[in-house]
Amino acid sequence: MTGETLEQIGEVEVIRRLTRRLGEALNVVVGIGDDAAVVRFEDDSHDLVLTTDAVIEGIHFSAEAPSADVGRKLAGRLLSDLAAMGAEPLWILCNVAAPPRTSFRDLKQLYAGMKRIAARFGADIVGGDLSRAESLHLHGFAAGRIPCQRAVTRAGARPGDAIFVTGALGGSILGKHLRFTPRVTEGLWLRKSGWPSAMIDVSDGLLRDLAHILGSSRCAADIEVRRIPVSPAARKLGDGVPPLDHALRDGEDFELLFTVPPDKVERFIRSWKKKFRLRCTKIGTIRAGPPAINLRKPDGSVVRVSAEGYDHFCSQGGKTP
Amino acid sequence: MTGETLEQIGEVEVIRRLTRRLGEALNVVVGIGDDAAVVRFEDDSHDLVLTTDAVIEGIHFSAEAPSADVGRKLAGRLLSDLAAMGAEPLWILCNVAAPPRTSFRDLKQLYAGMKRIAARFGADIVGGDLSRAESLHLHGFAAGRIPCQRAVTRAGARPGDAIFVTGALGGSILGKHLRFTPRVTEGLWLRKSGWPSAMIDVSDGLLRDLAHILGSSRCAADIEVRRIPVSPAARKLGDGVPPLDHALRDGEDFELLFTVPPDKVERFIRSWKKKFRLRCTKIGTIRAGPPAINLRKPDGSVVRVSAEGYDHFCSQGGKTP
Repeated sequence: MTGETLEQIGEVEVIRRLTRRLGEALNVVVGIGDDAAVVRFEDDSHDLVLTTDAVIEGIHFSAEAPSADVGRKLAGRLLSDLAAMGAEPLWILCNVAAPPRTSFRDLKQLYAGMKRIAARFGADIVGGDLSRAESLHLHGFAAGRIPCQRAVTRAGARPGDAIFVTGALGGSILGKHLRFTPRVTEGLWLRKSGWPSAMIDVSDGLLRDLAHILGSSRCAADIEVRRIPVSPAARKLGDGVPPLDHALRDGEDFELLFTVPPDKVERFIRSWKKKFRLRCTKIGTIRAGPPAINLRKPDGSVVRVSAEGYDHFCSQGGKTP
Repeated sequence: MTGETLEQIGEVEVIRRLTRRLGEALNVVVGIGDDAAVVRFEDDSHDLVLTTDAVIEGIHFSAEAPSADVGRKLAGRLLSDLAAMGAEPLWILCNVAAPPRTSFRDLKQLYAGMKRIAARFGADIVGGDLSRAESLHLHGFAAGRIPCQRAVTRAGARPGDAIFVTGALGGSILGKHLRFTPRVTEGLWLRKSGWPSAMIDVSDGLLRDLAHILGSSRCAADIEVRRIPVSPAARKLGDGVPPLDHALRDGEDFELLFTVPPDKVERFIRSWKKKFRLRCTKIGTIRAGPPAINLRKPDGSVVRVSAEGYDHFCSQGGKTP
């Protein structure tokens, strides 16, 4: 072990440095750096969308979490990645690394939880691998499909676009992080209807995921603080942190964050209300300029915020918890 | 944790019980229980082949293993799975779970090792996930393609077929388990030439992988002990276990084990020798009967052996190491 460590460099920069020259082949439509990779398989009317995710004991769930919820979370995360591209889920593979003393009943419930949420959104579990480890690690892979060139990436936001988010945000640690509903139906409808110019799922926290869109689209954002949909869970936490901060920074809400061109906004809002009961809130506007987020407070003052959220390698102080 | 544990049940039975009702959708050509899943994507001339594998510190490599070799092993295992179906590699995704104190240089070398072996066989790394863990876990996912209905499964062996294995077996722990060459070129050529009736890669040990073929094909095998290609590494181990036993039972040689119908055997042997310098040995014959392996010793006596090999959850005595 020599040189800089992962915690010193930080997750985003580690990934950027590692993946600089990957995914450059001709059949790769959208490479590394979006919610999923989009690849071309033969001369089809559809592209193939590939994504991976991990759910690790002690990081993504505690040892006390019900096994069915752990399985549900893994499949849910994969489905949420596909939803964020507007893709239709097809197949899931799941690697389980488990301590030998794991009870079979727990593993069975884990698979049942995974299978249930997958089946609900039309995905079939077709393979995987089982191996031994010190603690429980789940690594999942999903494939979906999307009509050629129709994937909704993070890179399409333009100045003037309205910024929307589904559901309510913050406090997912109280339960939603395990039992969220991936927004597959909404993601598919959004893509088919052609509303969003860019889209991502809120896995790392609103500010950080918005920053991903801004970085890929090379633009800035104004956010109206009073429009942020703060979840009851964020208000319930009572940990001294303002609920709004939870809504801005907590991860694992798995809602959809997307932008809609200005000329479509009114029609989009009407269509959404006709189609879904799920809340969908306009929280701000895309602006020209280098990637940055301006938070407009109710008193009219503006705070420029950094996009920091949860980093897998650095805690807030730059040290490992 | 209640009821039976994974180590009490054993890996093969755990997988059998977990996957009973998975992969039954109409677009699944070959479901769970082969080297890879084969699925139908649109009305193509090719099927899509999907596989996963894991490489875990302390299980699949020691902390002292060079990082480039660890990355090479993950991609190599995936490529070997595709080779065993006769598939052409296309895309790889890799999840890394690593301790925060991992050096970036190590992770970079790991990616370089993975990328090098992938590129050698035409595969592109298009995605993955990075998260924090107590020890280093790599989980990989690969997709390949194969002309429709041409995948070489474990289920096609018939009585009278000759049994072949590439390379030499045993003692991979001395280095080959990290630096093997996946037999992608050979697997593709075998499938294109139409020689094999069934095929698998030797990851769990010759006897155990042969048992997988016999179980799927519902037949037995006679093996000529003197024909087993024992590797120099197996002879070098000097651990008191006969080299032949290492060749029969050691895992992670990642050679191809396959069967060829009797009327094709002579032509196959000539073609192989013209095409490859790699050793390919006829080690026995498929027989009618329930799955069982008969080892014929040089003195003419026959021993019926069980197909036990490495079980990820049970050591030889049924306890965890």
